[in-house]
Amino acid sequence: MQLGLSVSDSDVSSFTPLVVLELADDTKAEAITWLLNRIRGKQQNGGAELLVDQLLFPAQDGQKSNQNVFVVGSTLQRLLKGAEDVGLFKEFQDGTMRGFTYANRESFKDFYGDGEGFLSDAECQYIIKHELDTLRAKNEEHVPGYPKVKLYPGKSVVRRLQSKGVLVQYFPLHNKEDLKRLSFSWYKKIKLSFQPLDDIRHYFGEGLALYFGFLEYFTFALVPMAFIGIPYYLFDWEDYDKYVLFAVFNLVWSTVFLEVWKRCSATLAYGWGTLSHKKAFEEPRAGFHGALGFNPITGREEPVYPSSKRQLRIYLVSVPFVLLCLYLSFYVMMVYFDMENWAISIYNENPNLATGILLFVPSIIYAVVIEIMNLLYRYAAEFLTNWGEPEILLFNFVNCFASLFYIAFVMQDMVLLRQSLATLLITSQILNQVMEAFLPYWLQRRRNKKVHKRMRRMMGDKELPLLEQVQLETEMNTYLGTFDDYLEQFLLFGYVSLFSCVYPLAAVLVVLNNITEVYSDAFKMCHVFKRPFSEPAANIGVWQLAFETMSIISVVTNCALIGLSSQVKAYFPESETQMILIVVAIEHVLLAFKFILAFVIPDVPKHIQVKLAKLEFDSLEALKKRVSTNFTWLTICDEGGTPSKFHPSNISFNLAERRRS
Amino acid sequence: MQLGLSVSDSDVSSFTPLVVLELADDTKAEAITWLLNRIRGKQQNGGAELLVDQLLFPAQDGQKSNQNVFVVGSTLQRLLKGAEDVGLFKEFQDGTMRGFTYANRESFKDFYGDGEGFLSDAECQYIIKHELDTLRAKNEEHVPGYPKVKLYPGKSVVRRLQSKGVLVQYFPLHNKEDLKRLSFSWYKKIKLSFQPLDDIRHYFGEGLALYFGFLEYFTFALVPMAFIGIPYYLFDWEDYDKYVLFAVFNLVWSTVFLEVWKRCSATLAYGWGTLSHKKAFEEPRAGFHGALGFNPITGREEPVYPSSKRQLRIYLVSVPFVLLCLYLSFYVMMVYFDMENWAISIYNENPNLATGILLFVPSIIYAVVIEIMNLLYRYAAEFLTNWGEPEILLFNFVNCFASLFYIAFVMQDMVLLRQSLATLLITSQILNQVMEAFLPYWLQRRRNKKVHKRMRRMMGDKELPLLEQVQLETEMNTYLGTFDDYLEQFLLFGYVSLFSCVYPLAAVLVVLNNITEVYSDAFKMCHVFKRPFSEPAANIGVWQLAFETMSIISVVTNCALIGLSSQVKAYFPESETQMILIVVAIEHVLLAFKFILAFVIPDVPKHIQVKLAKLEFDSLEALKKRVSTNFTWLTICDEGGTPSKFHPSNISFNLAERRRS
Repeated sequence: MQLGLSVSDSDVSSFTPLVVLELADDTKAEAITWLLNRIRGKQQNGGAELLVDQLLFPAQDGQKSNQNVFVVGSTLQRLLKGAEDVGLFKEFQDGTMRGFTYANRESFKDFYGDGEGFLSDAECQYIIKHELDTLRAKNEEHVPGYPKVKLYPGKSVVRRLQSKGVLVQYFPLHNKEDLKRLSFSWYKKIKLSFQPLDDIRHYFGEGLALYFGFLEYFTFALVPMAFIGIPYYLFDWEDYDKYVLFAVFNLVWSTVFLEVWKRCSATLAYGWGTLSHKKAFEEPRAGFHGALGFNPITGREEPVYPSSKRQLRIYLVSVPFVLLCLYLSFYVMMVYFDMENWAISIYNENPNLATGILLFVPSIIYAVVIEIMNLLYRYAAEFLTNWGEPEILLFNFVNCFASLFYIAFVMQDMVLLRQSLATLLITSQILNQVMEAFLPYWLQRRRNKKVHKRMRRMMGDKELPLLEQVQLETEMNTYLGTFDDYLEQFLLFGYVSLFSCVYPLAAVLVVLNNITEVYSDAFKMCHVFKRPFSEPAANIGVWQLAFETMSIISVVTNCALIGLSSQVKAYFPESETQMILIVVAIEHVLLAFKFILAFVIPDVPKHIQVKLAKLEFDSLEALKKRVSTNFTWLTICDEGGTPSKFHPSNISFNLAERRRS
Repeated sequence: MQLGLSVSDSDVSSFTPLVVLELADDTKAEAITWLLNRIRGKQQNGGAELLVDQLLFPAQDGQKSNQNVFVVGSTLQRLLKGAEDVGLFKEFQDGTMRGFTYANRESFKDFYGDGEGFLSDAECQYIIKHELDTLRAKNEEHVPGYPKVKLYPGKSVVRRLQSKGVLVQYFPLHNKEDLKRLSFSWYKKIKLSFQPLDDIRHYFGEGLALYFGFLEYFTFALVPMAFIGIPYYLFDWEDYDKYVLFAVFNLVWSTVFLEVWKRCSATLAYGWGTLSHKKAFEEPRAGFHGALGFNPITGREEPVYPSSKRQLRIYLVSVPFVLLCLYLSFYVMMVYFDMENWAISIYNENPNLATGILLFVPSIIYAVVIEIMNLLYRYAAEFLTNWGEPEILLFNFVNCFASLFYIAFVMQDMVLLRQSLATLLITSQILNQVMEAFLPYWLQRRRNKKVHKRMRRMMGDKELPLLEQVQLETEMNTYLGTFDDYLEQFLLFGYVSLFSCVYPLAAVLVVLNNITEVYSDAFKMCHVFKRPFSEPAANIGVWQLAFETMSIISVVTNCALIGLSSQVKAYFPESETQMILIVVAIEHVLLAFKFILAFVIPDVPKHIQVKLAKLEFDSLEALKKRVSTNFTWLTICDEGGTPSKFHPSNISFNLAERRRS
């Protein structure tokens, strides 16, 4: 933990503020007192044992600020104990990663003195979030002052307050100094270098660092494909034998790229301690509804989410909804084809520059409509089903690629396919950059200026940087997680790989897009959105599977495109059958090769496999020893015989003597 | 451990003999003395601390028996400590499986009194084998009496003696009483029931029990296919729409069957304690050559096998050898086709019963030659490369199926395919049963009688059952492991699935074969071969992958066969292309369905996943606690302050008092 906000802010709070809690302006005083007492209370009494202070904004001009804004911090000792609670893995003396324990803190590498700097900022904030989320109701039947906000023993207090609108939001504060350092090394230096992933992880946590790692890796992986694609465009290489070469290269490349990424991500996650830190052992999300039950793995009492209920909801709500949306999507596609035909007919009647440009208009409109539909579906699904990420993925895939599949395999119009692919890709890239970074940035700047002006008016010349910072960040938009960012990369990967042999230039466009994407994403994380809580992640999760599935589908589509091409057909003038059989055979060989390759390349590098196995071995050994120690104690008590397996006996002897005196 | 051999054998040995060691007849006396001392020596001096006795066969008639036969046994305590060394998992009080420790023995379920009956016979013998195998040279430079049999610190003594021919063999003894009970419940009862897998595991260990479990499961899984296949044969259903149905059923069935087997095998292996008992933690095979090194996982000093050396050997020896054998195999296939043509031409010249029978002769001869080549390759590969199981698998696959693929897809002769498939399948089944069980049984019986007569002649009326049993079992053949048995099932699975839509009766034949196979395999394990050492196994290993690969290949072959059939072609009279495209599309859908199915069905049942996760969680917690306990002890020593984290203080207080008095 680095003391970024100096103690000179002592007029406002007496500790380093890490997390901001904003309660509704009209919150009842007894509820506030109760909540603060719970947050400050000792752990043995069910409190979180954290530090919390109210921020008092000077009221002025009748334009009153919300007075119920609090900052939460913690003592270093409490954070270290919290690190044990959340199960952080840290580098041990011997270079391996071990579960951190407070008692054993001094055996960890990088632990000096009282542990200052041992935990990163993101980890400290994650720990505070965890402690707040697991602040559970005891015997209270409702929140004091709010008879309708019911509680039951074990219910997460913070979550209940949030769902009832009493707690407006809580978020981690930026650390201005660290942020300046990070943004300088990340995107302000104009030199070709890798991103500072460790610093990103230090500041934003593992989930986001892995996303940026993947983005960078994916972009580098596309560079060779882009280089090979350029001559195809420049020299108009329309020979399909060259395209076949390109498709084969593309396929092998995408397989190797995805397999090697697994190894890279395992290496990163091991170093960050998240590879050994299993999700299953963690406390469930504080937001889980449902009754209390026992977690069968950890044996802890915690809310259990009924799985069958979730299943039912998925079938009753999601399936009809997805079907309706897919129908809409197909309907829009058909309208697009009508527009396309209309544009072509106008061009054919009177071919000039204006009607030539008109040819591209339907594609552009369709691309914009697709983006809007994706966005609408995203929010509707979030609202309706809350958990529908796989459906969102599926819908986006169909929405983006349905028209391309239709053009390629039903209409078999390669010229239109290429044009449509290019328009869709370019339009969606431009839209994304605007929607994701520039628009929010512009809105944010306007807001910043307003807040700055208001603060100046309220406080005159007084320098209260913390108050102003909290005021600014409170009004920033919230970053909703990496899902949308991965989804964008997934769709780009689809544009590059599915029809790569028709439009090899796609890789060039995606590389160019991603270079700016790194900068705009970095910028939006640092300056447009609220700082997000760290999300421990060991890999990119479902996206690995999604990318792999896409690369398998791309083998099939590329082989089919090659088979459809007139050039390949020309090689087999008398027998179409023979041609098809050869293409199918090649496809099978490619698929088999892909699977063998995926099987042969180990997912986790050997040296990390060894370290993980060693951790497991040591753990099992420790479990054996622990049980046998307990047992030895029992035999000493029960039988009173001479202990035969009692190693540290002279130490306890000294101890007993000291007690006696 | 059950005391099967009664103590009335006290004239021969004073303990229950479990393992027989046979040294060469001319072994030098000092080597024997040295070896026995090492086996009997205390563990702290690098001995095995086992019991060992010489068996003295009364010499007579100048036909002298080998006098250097020893039986090895152990005290119960030593076995229990050995169970900890080998890392056995046993059921704990709370119903979960835990690594066994001697200190904590009484907390395990089924541990009563001094632990009599806690370990199975197979486990006791496995432990003794492990202790003998890990008996390592200390400072001896060579075996006493054999200056040329060099030793170096850490070299496995038993393995060196074995490789130099001083130790002829060592094997576990049968337990006559248990064997009688087992064979009664296994194959002597004439009633339809499942095999007693737990008893088999108890007597032969997990590896063999899993094989018999798989054999039974596979046979049951084939029964529905066999039932559906019979009407195809009886009513001559040559319509390919019916065959299509059969092929689809076959495919879904084989996928589900293989996925469900994984769950069954996980359930079995969990109950037997091998699922948690990781191979990586075990000591390496005593036979590993190479210098001493540190196992990076366990931190133990043990011989390390250089991986690059093995790689090199595989490339330099195996690859040319496999290529040569494949060439031979293809050559034999071509000779078979010549013979086939010759037989057909003779039949066409003069069609009668004799020439009709002659039509089958080439296939039968070819089937016999295939079996002989498989056998030869098996031994040659063992001799040349020692580890070449994947190559053996590949060679057998090509050898058995090359002609069928050639007939199906190059000659496209479905009648010959069906005839050839039937002949190959039936011939290989008959040959296998004869070679595997009846021939060895017949040889064994002759040998038994000879030994019995000799013993009677030597000892007159004296009843010395142990001497006679050892004499008999020493001369029995050695069972070489489950590889050949699995290989046979793998090839049968190939016959059933690859061309199932052409010859649906194959399933019936395989079911009939396997019913007798269970009996003949059980019989051969109990009465034909020496008892094998138990081989702990958590699953069927590489065979799962092999069967899955076969079922994927079978999707492709069946779809291709359907596409080739004249009936399907008749549906698309004007467009062959359309037909092929439809068949290819169906194939892709089937393959995708197969992968989704494999992905959706979890490999390990939920309740066992939970138990495994709980073990891992408890282990990691124990590791945390252990490290922190050590740390607490250290602070007490170093700083001498009041201990704050010292729980069992009053117990140690009592202890100290007792010591003082």
